Amino acid sequence: MKKPSRFLQTPIEPFAVDHGLTADEILSRMERISFQGRNLAIARRIWRKMLDDDVTIFLGMAGALSAGGLRLIVARLIADRYVDCLVSTGANLYHDLHETRGKHHYLGSAQADDAMLAQEGIDRVYDTFASEDEFIDNDSWIAEFAASLEPRPYTTREFLYLLGGHLWTTTERDGILTSAYRANVPIFCPAIADSSIGMGLSQARQKVPGTGYIDIIGDVVESANVIIRRPRTASVVLGGGTPKNFINQASVQAEFFSDDVSGHRYAVQIVTDVPHFGGASGSSLEEAQSWGKLATDSDRVSVQADATIALPLLVSALAEVDPHVLTRRRKPVLTLAYRIMTIDEQTI
Amino acid sequence: MKKPSRFLQTPIEPFAVDHGLTADEILSRMERISFQGRNLAIARRIWRKMLDDDVTIFLGMAGALSAGGLRLIVARLIADRYVDCLVSTGANLYHDLHETRGKHHYLGSAQADDAMLAQEGIDRVYDTFASEDEFIDNDSWIAEFAASLEPRPYTTREFLYLLGGHLWTTTERDGILTSAYRANVPIFCPAIADSSIGMGLSQARQKVPGTGYIDIIGDVVESANVIIRRPRTASVVLGGGTPKNFINQASVQAEFFSDDVSGHRYAVQIVTDVPHFGGASGSSLEEAQSWGKLATDSDRVSVQADATIALPLLVSALAEVDPHVLTRRRKPVLTLAYRIMTIDEQTI
Amino acid sequence: MKKPSRFLQTPIEPFAVDHGLTADEILSRMERISFQGRNLAIARRIWRKMLDDDVTIFLGMAGALSAGGLRLIVARLIADRYVDCLVSTGANLYHDLHETRGKHHYLGSAQADDAMLAQEGIDRVYDTFASEDEFIDNDSWIAEFAASLEPRPYTTREFLYLLGGHLWTTTERDGILTSAYRANVPIFCPAIADSSIGMGLSQARQKVPGTGYIDIIGDVVESANVIIRRPRTASVVLGGGTPKNFINQASVQAEFFSDDVSGHRYAVQIVTDVPHFGGASGSSLEEAQSWGKLATDSDRVSVQADATIALPLLVSALAEVDPHVLTRRRKPVLTLAYRIMTIDEQTI
Amino acid sequence: MKKPSRFLQTPIEPFAVDHGLTADEILSRMERISFQGRNLAIARRIWRKMLDDDVTIFLGMAGALSAGGLRLIVARLIADRYVDCLVSTGANLYHDLHETRGKHHYLGSAQADDAMLAQEGIDRVYDTFASEDEFIDNDSWIAEFAASLEPRPYTTREFLYLLGGHLWTTTERDGILTSAYRANVPIFCPAIADSSIGMGLSQARQKVPGTGYIDIIGDVVESANVIIRRPRTASVVLGGGTPKNFINQASVQAEFFSDDVSGHRYAVQIVTDVPHFGGASGSSLEEAQSWGKLATDSDRVSVQADATIALPLLVSALAEVDPHVLTRRRKPVLTLAYRIMTIDEQTI
Repeated sequence: MKKPSRFLQTPIEPFAVDHGLTADEILSRMERISFQGRNLAIARRIWRKMLDDDVTIFLGMAGALSAGGLRLIVARLIADRYVDCLVSTGANLYHDLHETRGKHHYLGSAQADDAMLAQEGIDRVYDTFASEDEFIDNDSWIAEFAASLEPRPYTTREFLYLLGGHLWTTTERDGILTSAYRANVPIFCPAIADSSIGMGLSQARQKVPGTGYIDIIGDVVESANVIIRRPRTASVVLGGGTPKNFINQASVQAEFFSDDVSGHRYAVQIVTDVPHFGGASGSSLEEAQSWGKLATDSDRVSVQADATIALPLLVSALAEVDPHVLTRRRKPVLTLAYRIMTIDEQTI
Repeated sequence: MKKPSRFLQTPIEPFAVDHGLTADEILSRMERISFQGRNLAIARRIWRKMLDDDVTIFLGMAGALSAGGLRLIVARLIADRYVDCLVSTGANLYHDLHETRGKHHYLGSAQADDAMLAQEGIDRVYDTFASEDEFIDNDSWIAEFAASLEPRPYTTREFLYLLGGHLWTTTERDGILTSAYRANVPIFCPAIADSSIGMGLSQARQKVPGTGYIDIIGDVVESANVIIRRPRTASVVLGGGTPKNFINQASVQAEFFSDDVSGHRYAVQIVTDVPHFGGASGSSLEEAQSWGKLATDSDRVSVQADATIALPLLVSALAEVDPHVLTRRRKPVLTLAYRIMTIDEQTI
Repeated sequence: MKKPSRFLQTPIEPFAVDHGLTADEILSRMERISFQGRNLAIARRIWRKMLDDDVTIFLGMAGALSAGGLRLIVARLIADRYVDCLVSTGANLYHDLHETRGKHHYLGSAQADDAMLAQEGIDRVYDTFASEDEFIDNDSWIAEFAASLEPRPYTTREFLYLLGGHLWTTTERDGILTSAYRANVPIFCPAIADSSIGMGLSQARQKVPGTGYIDIIGDVVESANVIIRRPRTASVVLGGGTPKNFINQASVQAEFFSDDVSGHRYAVQIVTDVPHFGGASGSSLEEAQSWGKLATDSDRVSVQADATIALPLLVSALAEVDPHVLTRRRKPVLTLAYRIMTIDEQTI
Repeated sequence: MKKPSRFLQTPIEPFAVDHGLTADEILSRMERISFQGRNLAIARRIWRKMLDDDVTIFLGMAGALSAGGLRLIVARLIADRYVDCLVSTGANLYHDLHETRGKHHYLGSAQADDAMLAQEGIDRVYDTFASEDEFIDNDSWIAEFAASLEPRPYTTREFLYLLGGHLWTTTERDGILTSAYRANVPIFCPAIADSSIGMGLSQARQKVPGTGYIDIIGDVVESANVIIRRPRTASVVLGGGTPKNFINQASVQAEFFSDDVSGHRYAVQIVTDVPHFGGASGSSLEEAQSWGKLATDSDRVSVQADATIALPLLVSALAEVDPHVLTRRRKPVLTLAYRIMTIDEQTI
């Protein structure tokens, strides 16, 4: 009889539907199917491994996740310290601020007549609507706050901590910015200029010359130092963009200064972009190894899926982990209230 | 005070993670978020509406869903009569038969060395492996069965019913073919020639001249008649391809013969292909209206997602519906054992 | 000084724009750039190699290429014998027949109101419109022709040859069907039932019982025999679908019967679908090797691009090859007028 | 006789292959086909209209276009003033600088073993390789230059002008940065921190405290003022990302301050991302209207294609326009050598 092939070891186990399956049970059964379903199940397994290990977990978020209804999932990940540091586009923080201030995004339609929407002052994000007037009000609110700060350059990390604090004091509502403020989780926003927060900052300068200065190169230094101080890291990326690259670049920059750094130990990315057009957003985690962004023996998985499907399922499953996992996690302790942040009591 | 815009009626409600959420609870919360998450939630809502209405539900399946671990979900949809008629690619039925015969597909890797796999007789479907020898054995098994039949043309509907029956008798195992046989759910396979079942049929003819004849134009006639006899229909499509078009074509063909037919009343599609390259697989449900494939007032939703993520979640949620919904469903009664099928006791 | 790396041998040469570049010059300069541009340039190089070699070239076409304005490119590839055998979806042949009969498709818009189009009898293919009445007229024309044939099963290869002949006699216009008829290039259409040609055939049977029989399993046998008789083959695939798989399956089936067959020697595919959802349309050419569909030492390239951009550029470049390349090509000689075809004077 | 439908006015004209077609002839014939081929042809038509009109043309570039061999096309667009202002990711400027400094990117393979590449110090961008040591040398070169500047904040526009000048003085080679310097075309780089240029700037600060300060909010102000001073604008976007949004945001911000601004008059985007996941990169030009980013009566087209195919063809076609079109173009006159730029002799 022929010896079974080394390539045929673990059979696919067809997904069995049962009544009342929870998120964790669903993803557990998806470990033995194929394609992106399996990859999403692996993402859950890797994230759980991160929580048990001694690693600083970076979360990157791009795409219209806040407007699209995922901001409280991210807030929860921050509050319960499933992650230790957020890198975000400006838009996600802006749309978070919008809702934390008590405004809303609305169910809309992708087939809407945009000329008519423009006339009525409605901004469209695919199938989601918002009021332009309310956005203009946010811009002023941000401008006013930024204009009230001592006129000097701020890293986005410092500025967003202060903004989150101001937002918390004003609203006492949960959201990404407020949760990060309360949990002392730093937020970096490398492309802050390319967002309505950037517009608000430019209006601050209009009001009070000398205000609205952002020191994004300071963010480059600080993010690298976070890794130098605590070289074991993990990366969870939603949607590519500047956050994905910034998290990787921090590791590469850190390696330039410290021999202890050798790329992220774990990497999960949930993306819709693809590798074959060469852009960074869709680039594979294998390619990231060639750059040293990722350790060559890292646990890693790339899930090709819209985050609005993948994240509710994945984080609902993570919410089923034993709470002790989170309490005994060796998470970094950060202080963010000053110009210079600290991690585990070391300045950065 | 400004009147609120008619475009801003229902706020997005950020997904709130809780401990132990079931599939149905997850999808229910996804109704108020955006993008494909919302669309998947709408798919659940529309499918539930179909179950309450008096419609014949077609299910189309393309892509490597059986090899990829979804065959028992489809079997379940058939057995519990969430659907009334299956249109499938040949490959999905073949890989189903493979596992029902006790063989397996295996967890593999998309980064495998294909030259080495070829050398070891391993066939790869993205991240999934199978034994070529076992596939050759299936081909012979199908050839032998087909060669044993009375040598005349068979519609795929009749042939697949007989094949399912033979498979059930031989194995008594659940699967798509066997469940469809037992539940009297017809299967059409318009591109059967383009699959290993087609290869098996061609080998039958090699063995016994005159066998292995398939009458696919008979399938065109029969599928249209199914709709003519019972003009209220719904379409659930996984992955585009020939099944998607065949289900629509049946409706268009039926309309040609009967004024009672005016397109599917409900349509759900879970696809990864996109509209803007013009192909039928990725075509929008709006476009389908222009052809009369879909009623212009139909409930419809297109979900851009890999079925290996979307289907386990969606069908797990459907499994939570009150069982009475299924028992009181006005599902068509079909007989398939003969050359001419009947629906609700009318011949076709 | 450090030795240069073996990985850094051939520099990228930035594309230099010049006045009046022809298609061939453009693709020649694209050989030294990256991503899909390079891949399209490689496609040109491989196709030219095929023309110099002694191989039977299969062309597969899926997607709405005929409706979309590419039918005369395909007709040209057939007439000048850049290819030897066509495998197509039914829709592409149907839309070709439509225009060869003197009707048109029309510039339309992807943002059209489909309910209004439905009302006016306009069928939409993304940004392209056509008249439903004219389509119904085609169906009748096909039905009438099919009903006039001797009532016996026809392979699609035989039926489409006869249809092409009838079309040529009636119209004397260039098109895919008529060019294939005149150049004795066989056309296989494994999913013919899933198209308006299939609908026409089913209407034939309505008119004249016993007509409209298609023997698609005969196509499986014949396509394999084409390869057995002449085992060196090449595959050019536009858009995945049943044609892609059928061309590969023919090789696998042929290998089952003949030791001389060992997969296509060359493979070019121009696709928009991606590998990571597991479907055959987007599957990689590397994966095809594991199945033996492709020789492991084959020249191959996969181009991720819409054929409506890639094909005009690629075939315009091919049209610049020295005409002697085509005349001295060792192309197979086929006869198609009978129930049994011949290749290089051998029956199949 | 039935009146012809208003929807059926302009027939599709199948692309006719001829010997020696130039880029412009190819795109001209593609105007009458469908899908993305037609869209690319429309892009050419719209760009030609822009050149005849009195508009400031913004070019956005994201994705690995410079590494991928398109930098001299962009340099040409700048030098010949097909465009007036560039918004780019940092990576594209960095990879341009790399080659302008005489280094190369190399033809590589997407199937490479990344662990082995990492070991040999090779960085991979899909199918393209580069030397990490050479990259590190660039970083130092940038750091040294930045450290030599007067220690004050610089907008990216000012810094990149100075960097381009230094590069030109050092190398006298054509490239994006040097061409922009010589043609007085401003470059904005809103996410400069998220790139190796950002890493070089952070190293400058390490060397000389007080250097490496970038004032990206100043860029927000300046880019809006460019539009306020000359409110008729056009947008050509390659690949989404921060450049796409920044160009749109500049218009929205400008509208906030000036009633003369009402969105871009023309918009062309060549993207591979899709709208249905809600991200800005793939968002439709229709959606942009709702935000006022685009005039509701703008000429616009979105082309779904890899820029490495679309751009060589499109710009080769544009290179065939009558040179007088470019000389008589009413292009803005800019001065960039100082902290405050001017446009048409007005300070900004």
